Amino acid sequence: MTTQQSTQRFSTAVTVVGLGPMGEALAETLLAQGHPLTVWNRTPDKADGLVARGAHRAATVADAVSASPLTVACLKDYDTLYGVFEPAGDALAGRTLVNLNSGTPKEARAAVLWAEERGAEYLDGAIMVPPPLVGHPDSVFLYSGSRDVFDKHRAALAALGDPRYLGSDPGLAVLYNTALLDMMYATLNGWLHATALVGSANVSAVEFSELALGWFMPTVLDPKSLLAKAPDLDRADYPGDLGTMDMNLNALDHIARTTLEQGIHPDHPRLMKEIAEQAIAVGHGGHSYLSLFEVFKKKPQTH
Amino acid sequence: MTTQQSTQRFSTAVTVVGLGPMGEALAETLLAQGHPLTVWNRTPDKADGLVARGAHRAATVADAVSASPLTVACLKDYDTLYGVFEPAGDALAGRTLVNLNSGTPKEARAAVLWAEERGAEYLDGAIMVPPPLVGHPDSVFLYSGSRDVFDKHRAALAALGDPRYLGSDPGLAVLYNTALLDMMYATLNGWLHATALVGSANVSAVEFSELALGWFMPTVLDPKSLLAKAPDLDRADYPGDLGTMDMNLNALDHIARTTLEQGIHPDHPRLMKEIAEQAIAVGHGGHSYLSLFEVFKKKPQTH
Ligand SMILES: NC(=O)c1ccc[n+]([C@@H]2O[C@H](COP(=O)([O-])OP(=O)(O)OC[C@H]3O[C@@H](n4cnc5c(N)ncnc54)[C@H](OP(=O)(O)O)[C@@H]3O)[C@@H](O)[C@H]2O)c1
Ligand SMILES: NC(=O)c1ccc[n+]([C@@H]2O[C@H](COP(=O)([O-])OP(=O)(O)OC[C@H]3O[C@@H](n4cnc5c(N)ncnc54)[C@H](OP(=O)(O)O)[C@@H]3O)[C@@H](O)[C@H]2O)c1
Repeated sequence: MTTQQSTQRFSTAVTVVGLGPMGEALAETLLAQGHPLTVWNRTPDKADGLVARGAHRAATVADAVSASPLTVACLKDYDTLYGVFEPAGDALAGRTLVNLNSGTPKEARAAVLWAEERGAEYLDGAIMVPPPLVGHPDSVFLYSGSRDVFDKHRAALAALGDPRYLGSDPGLAVLYNTALLDMMYATLNGWLHATALVGSANVSAVEFSELALGWFMPTVLDPKSLLAKAPDLDRADYPGDLGTMDMNLNALDHIARTTLEQGIHPDHPRLMKEIAEQAIAVGHGGHSYLSLFEVFKKKPQTH
Repeated sequence: MTTQQSTQRFSTAVTVVGLGPMGEALAETLLAQGHPLTVWNRTPDKADGLVARGAHRAATVADAVSASPLTVACLKDYDTLYGVFEPAGDALAGRTLVNLNSGTPKEARAAVLWAEERGAEYLDGAIMVPPPLVGHPDSVFLYSGSRDVFDKHRAALAALGDPRYLGSDPGLAVLYNTALLDMMYATLNGWLHATALVGSANVSAVEFSELALGWFMPTVLDPKSLLAKAPDLDRADYPGDLGTMDMNLNALDHIARTTLEQGIHPDHPRLMKEIAEQAIAVGHGGHSYLSLFEVFKKKPQTH
């Protein structure tokens, strides 16, 4: 169902609690898409613009929650969530709370119990885009926990972006979010470190990146080809016929030595080399590089 | 100039020295594209198949070098190169040697002097694809050093793949190669570590990768958008208006803590967090995440 269709068919009243940069973007989007909107924020005047465009400013969180069947919370963290909603008392009973702050899987699971004790339906979510992209139909929002709550409010959630339901474990949305950011930082660090490495020979970032991002990344690191290898990880099947961990350790050793020779920051390549050595130490020397997955799944002995 | 055109217009005789997996692929490709081919390898019977298809097996390296204006060397490393070519004596004088083994920039620069002393023209190169992709017109081969040598032999080199000349510093080809591999391993590690992180909540690699590689990587880590930021690195200009290093440190701290909470390998996120802290310590707290580039350019004080 597209955002367009949902707007035409429903206009559920929604409450947004928390008007930081992200909460404000959520509220603006719901308002623009025709949802009757109530807002609350600790610092009330952050709602001024929204109120000028037709939103209702609730005087208390209890009033805010009572105004709509669905409340979307976008506060700093889970502790802030509890601090803000505790004063709402019984108002939460029979209502739905969709919570979009970041946190750990344990925190997300604990919030379900907290909501249950207050008779509220609860869904945990995570936003995968920055505020300016909220409301774009391609912007992914992750949800996990009660499938019923997700289905019931799917139309309103679709106003915010492309809603993806990940499963009944409420910890999944924040965990996926954290993992995707983990991957993002690793990839960015790889590009920046590689650019610094060639920079040590006075190659400009633009010149290197034209090759690194214009050719190498889309072809050698083609996401479709990597995706085709994901079943190997699930099967723990790492045929080494196209290259072994031993061969990759040679390459990683070479990268680490070149980094030292060129006098740039050495820690990233050194760690990658150490982790390949750990893989070999537990028997993956003849397996493909993807067998590193087995190492990453566990804390190393020394920790 | 395409490979096709070059084959139609030239058929320079070429010698290939070194018939490991890569050298053999080079030799097969040159032969298939109609170049008169002479080969030499320490273990001579690795040439049997090539000889059966029309290649000439030289008895000595001197004979091999003398047979063609251009010799392509693809040996294990620079020390092997010297060990193999020393016995060729005067045969190298007036010939061109294009050397494709991996190494460090210093080693590549030293090889130019070594070749000069023997009166040989020299070009250093690096192969960016595995043996099965040699000969494919999209397969990138990097070259650096003498532009004249590159231009003179461009047609024969184009038979092997798409030849890219990087500049007159002979160290550039191996350095780019090392940097691209650095980026590749960092990106692969990011994907594998993130997959291990969600795996700790029993999410399959395929399920996570469909989102991580099917959506996140091509959109959030879109190479074209990253390329558009490369000029910021060259200008050392890191506006923090769309997110600061301080904010990214929060996210990295969150990733590191989640990794510990989920009991998986913690070193990668911990190092990424430490490096962001180093960036903040030298004044990049209010700058964008890309200011990490400034940290990567130098060895940290503690090393
Ligand atoms: N911004 C992004 O790009 C982005 C992207 C994805 C996810 N997120 C997540 O979305 C959530 C909100 O982020 P944000 O960027 O909008 O800003 P934020 O600084 O994380 O949160 C701001 C909100 O929290 C409220 N708040 C903070 N401390 C409070 C307290 N002690 N009592 C009551 N309210 C308190 C603020 O109220 P006041 O206005 O009164 O200070 C404001 O409503 C976070 O969990 C963040 O990780 C953000
Ligand atoms: N394979 C790849 O995917 C790939 C990709 C890019 C770059 N490269 C680079 O290409 C170069 C060659 O790689 P490769 O994969 O073909 O295999 P390799 O094992 O790196 O090199 C094998 C070649 O070196 C020779 N050799 C080794 N030690 C020797 C010695 N002491 N004396 C004389 N010859 C010796 C071998 O001769 P014998 O046959 O007699 O042992 C064989 O010709 C390396 O620098 C590698 O880094 C390889």
